[in-house]
Order: sequence, then structure tokens, then C-alpha cells
Amino acid sequence: MPHLTILYTPNLDGAIEDGGADIQALCNTLAETMAAQRDEALAAVFPIGGIRVLAYPASHYAIADGGAAGRAADGTGEYAFVYLNLRVARGRSAAVLERTGRALDACIKRHFEGILTERHIGVTLQIDEGDEVFNARTSSLHPLFARD
Amino acid sequence: MPHLTILYTPNLDGAIEDGGADIQALCNTLAETMAAQRDEALAAVFPIGGIRVLAYPASHYAIADGGAAGRAADGTGEYAFVYLNLRVARGRSAAVLERTGRALDACIKRHFEGILTERHIGVTLQIDEGDEVFNARTSSLHPLFARD
Amino acid sequence: MPHLTILYTPNLDGAIEDGGADIQALCNTLAETMAAQRDEALAAVFPIGGIRVLAYPASHYAIADGGAAGRAADGTGEYAFVYLNLRVARGRSAAVLERTGRALDACIKRHFEGILTERHIGVTLQIDEGDEVFNARTSSLHPLFARD
Repeated sequence: MPHLTILYTPNLDGAIEDGGADIQALCNTLAETMAAQRDEALAAVFPIGGIRVLAYPASHYAIADGGAAGRAADGTGEYAFVYLNLRVARGRSAAVLERTGRALDACIKRHFEGILTERHIGVTLQIDEGDEVFNARTSSLHPLFARD
Repeated sequence: MPHLTILYTPNLDGAIEDGGADIQALCNTLAETMAAQRDEALAAVFPIGGIRVLAYPASHYAIADGGAAGRAADGTGEYAFVYLNLRVARGRSAAVLERTGRALDACIKRHFEGILTERHIGVTLQIDEGDEVFNARTSSLHPLFARD
Repeated sequence: MPHLTILYTPNLDGAIEDGGADIQALCNTLAETMAAQRDEALAAVFPIGGIRVLAYPASHYAIADGGAAGRAADGTGEYAFVYLNLRVARGRSAAVLERTGRALDACIKRHFEGILTERHIGVTLQIDEGDEVFNARTSSLHPLFARD
């Protein structure tokens, strides 16, 4: 943890200059933003070895009214959508979660700034605190970041 | 919101006439069903700009006993599975959620009626009320549907 | 139910002998492990017709520091990650859930034993008890396993 899963419409794939949303760059910048979060004691909010961002374009999708309002407004009816769900472990303060959410949201708003003016797109970020009843980890990743 | 995520086995891809389940048509009809829901005051249960259906075929899967019982019953051992998870925001009445669930379930049962008699398939629909600790939205979609 | 969803980095695709993690074999062995679970009364913990494992490689991802620590340690900076989320219905005892989690975790540790020594990989298993507000099932699968 933290795990950020991104579900999005495949019409966002591709580089920004080709009309896409460069979802790989979004993954990178969100991971960096998570790594940069500090709590009240200036300690890292998230262990760096636990940061994971995974993004998935849907194979099929239907958004809103399917395009009618978009066509009525500007001639295209293609909608795009990105859902970002961050699952964190229990135990962080409400203030830390709020600040983390705002930092990620700022990052998202920067990333989609240009696209928002050119396309009909919805982007939603939610943070869930996991309430798992069992948790187990097997890792050769965390030891890379173990404190000496 | 609402977000309906569909996870399914890839042996359902393809058109109905080719033995598939036409998951794109399922996405469309579910989005329309969500848009058509009305509450006790005859207001839309869901803002139309917030309706999102995303469907994902799995790359790998294992179902039930892996096919033994299916082979024993009819010679094929290929199972199919569809999991539909609708996440809605908190605050709707139990009656509205129940009615919405029944409407979606009826839609699903219609869609899979023929397939159920020809294949071994499981379809599960669940509705979750999100209990997110942070929520943020960036959208050029919702304004299309803003009330005057 | 139970539904086990596996999200993983695509650099794990492929057979073990080709440096992959054989995710299909992992799905199979996890399904068998779920089917083998017994409760205090020696009854099956899960109905066999309800066992579903679906695995999804991400299209884009960012893990930890993006590779810097891995490169500093051994020359490669490629990280891998697997997230396994098992969602079960409410109503099983804490002891049964714990034992099920341990059985799945043992299965995972065996599967990734060799890979853990050769690659930087994180594997996380979590079990969630669903708290759905609506649930509906349509199935031609369960009848295959109906008790006489």
C-alpha cells in the first residue's frame, strides 16, 4: 500500500500531441506525488516501496447519455472518463488523507488541464481506507527501501 | 458516480450470433437503465453526466472446478463469468437502491437469457455504497447536463 | 462468491522458464486452494460453483521510485507487482477467514518463490468482506454443483 488503480476509457490512450492523455505520464507523476507526501512530523506518509499505480483502459464502455448531449453541443459525441481509486491502509489522520487527496487532485487537474478544454471528459478521484479482514505481503521490493 | 465496473471472462467477447455476449450492448443497456431510474419524487436517481460503465475481459481466469463438472454434464468444460459492481455515492434510500438493483438485474437477465440456456455461465451483480474518505471531481462532462 | 481479482504488472506475463510468472497457473492453484478450504464442521468454506479468479495485467504502471533503488542495487530497475483481492460474502468466522488467508498466502509464496530471489517484486493479498447493499445472481453454473 498505497495502491492507486486507474480505470479509464481507451479513447484516452496515446500521447498528448496525438490527442491522448499520456496515461503513463499520469502514473509516473501520481507515484511521485504520493512519494512526496509528508505528515505532521515530516515523515513520509507512504513507504516508498509500497507505492503502486496500475492503469487499465476498458475494452467496452458507456458514458452518460452515450454522446447525444456532446453532439448537440459541438458535433462530436465522444466522452472520456478516468476513475482513480487510491486504497490506503487504515490508521492515517483525516488531515493527512485530505492533504494527500488535494495533492493528487492538483496533480490530476494539471495533467488534464488542456484535455478538459478540448474534450468532454470526467475525472474522479476517490480515496478508500481498506477494511480488509486479512492482509499478507511477500516482497523483494520493500527491502530495497529498508531504513538502515 | 454511479460507476459500474464489469469484470468478465474473455470467452464472452464477440457478438451474440458468434456465440459471444455482446458486452458493448450490455454496457449500453445498463447505462440507459441507470439513466431511467426515478426516486419517490420522480427525480432522476443518478445525474446523467455521472453514469459510467466500464467493462474488462480478464487475461487469465479460473472458474469453479476448472471445467470437470461441465464436461461431465455435456461434453464442454468452458465456464463463463460476469461480475458487475455498481458503486454509488452514499445517501440514497434503501428502497431506491433495491429498485435500482432489480431494474439492473432484470436488464441483465434479459441480456443473458439465451446464453444461460446454451453455456455454463455465472452472472453476479452487486451494489456498493462508497465509503470513500476523499472525493474530488474534475469534469467537462457534467456541464453538458447542467440544469438551466 | 468468492471472487479473487488479481491486478499485476504486465512484465510478469509469460511462462516461468521465460522469466514470467505464469499467472494462469497461479489462477488455477488459487482456485483449487479455495475449493479445498474446510470450516470447523469440515464443510466447504466456499461453494465450488462460486469460485472465480480473474487476472488483469495493467496497461500502464508506476511502482515505488520508478526503478532508481533497483538500478542502484543490481543494475536493473524493473519492478513487478501483484495485488490479489479476495472478496467474500459476509458471515464466515474470523478463524475461517484467517485460515483461508494463510492457505492462499502459502500458495502465493510457493508460486513466487523462485521469482522473489531473481526480481524485485511485491505481492500483496487482501481479503475483503463485501458490504454490498444489493446482490443478485443469475447462473447456469451453480446448478452443475447442486447437491443431490
